[in-house]
Amino acid sequence: MSTSISAALDAERGPAEHDVRTQIIQAATAHFSHYGYDKTTVSDLAKAIGFSKAYIYKFFASKQAIGEVICANCLAQIESDVHAALEGVEAAPDRLRVLFTAIVDASLRLFLQDRRLYEIAVAAATDQWPSTRAYQGRIRQLVEEILKDGRASGAFENQTALDQTSRAVYQILVPYLNPVTLPHVSVMHEESPNALQELVLRSLSPQRV
Amino acid sequence: MSTSISAALDAERGPAEHDVRTQIIQAATAHFSHYGYDKTTVSDLAKAIGFSKAYIYKFFASKQAIGEVICANCLAQIESDVHAALEGVEAAPDRLRVLFTAIVDASLRLFLQDRRLYEIAVAAATDQWPSTRAYQGRIRQLVEEILKDGRASGAFENQTALDQTSRAVYQILVPYLNPVTLPHVSVMHEESPNALQELVLRSLSPQRV
Repeated sequence: MSTSISAALDAERGPAEHDVRTQIIQAATAHFSHYGYDKTTVSDLAKAIGFSKAYIYKFFASKQAIGEVICANCLAQIESDVHAALEGVEAAPDRLRVLFTAIVDASLRLFLQDRRLYEIAVAAATDQWPSTRAYQGRIRQLVEEILKDGRASGAFENQTALDQTSRAVYQILVPYLNPVTLPHVSVMHEESPNALQELVLRSLSPQRV
Repeated sequence: MSTSISAALDAERGPAEHDVRTQIIQAATAHFSHYGYDKTTVSDLAKAIGFSKAYIYKFFASKQAIGEVICANCLAQIESDVHAALEGVEAAPDRLRVLFTAIVDASLRLFLQDRRLYEIAVAAATDQWPSTRAYQGRIRQLVEEILKDGRASGAFENQTALDQTSRAVYQILVPYLNPVTLPHVSVMHEESPNALQELVLRSLSPQRV
């Protein structure tokens, strides 16, 4: 079970009533989209949905617990787009190219175009919510797996320590995964969408003395 | 004449009275440090300094023109630290290492430790003030000069287009130059301060088939 899902379950009080939880999440997502996440209280939300505050607290321990689920859904969408793009791509260099392209495109689409999610995503990234940390960990793991495959097939050099290299490649990706930093790096990305990945691939090239 | 200095001079109205301008900048820096840049008006500032608002407008066209000078001073300090660190360093790979280390350290020191400057630096980066754009241009130029030297000496490969490579290297540096993005990437930098620059240097290595 991923950290984000277990965090959401920890936040749950009372019996698991999937439909009510989903109903609250949907109503909260719509409400936050109009009034913003930061300025809305659980009382505001309860009034708007037509539930009592106590009833909402049966399902979610706090406003952040609701935001966590919305954020986890959003990050799951990005990951789902990335895995769909990687489907059938075999060679490690191609997989790395697809990872860079798909994750930046999906982040731009979700974080910057869907304004309703942006304020929640910013809170999640700034305060490093469990869903954010778990997502970062999984992307880092994906980078490491691609590098490991590439080393095994001879596509990538294996003279430097794997953890050092995969950490550095992930570090280059980080500003493009974070909704706060993304608007500050997206212009350069749009001007030359392949520049970073080609630099990274040159650094991984095995043809060296 | 740099863009930031000419912008400051454009903003000037009336005769160049260096001492009064310096006095206003010093008082404004101190005032912003207590009350913040965003929430302070030129009227507030005038009252606090004991000058009339009209007198301040003789020297600066707007609050942003004052902020521009404070910001330009701050960026000039970072550049001065970087050039001091590069003094006497000859080999291009070493110059690139020193550039990465010195500019990230100076940015961390100035943007994150000197809270009084942070709000101004954030406004400058978010709205891309002329001082910020000029600074970014000079750093990008410095990266390109180091790469050119390294290609001439044979330390770096010269198969890829110089502008493509220097752009990508600069792009990796960007999140560390910007006060908004810096807090979101500083943890990874602190855990492994050389990871990025070593990846970049591997990508520049000429030993390839």
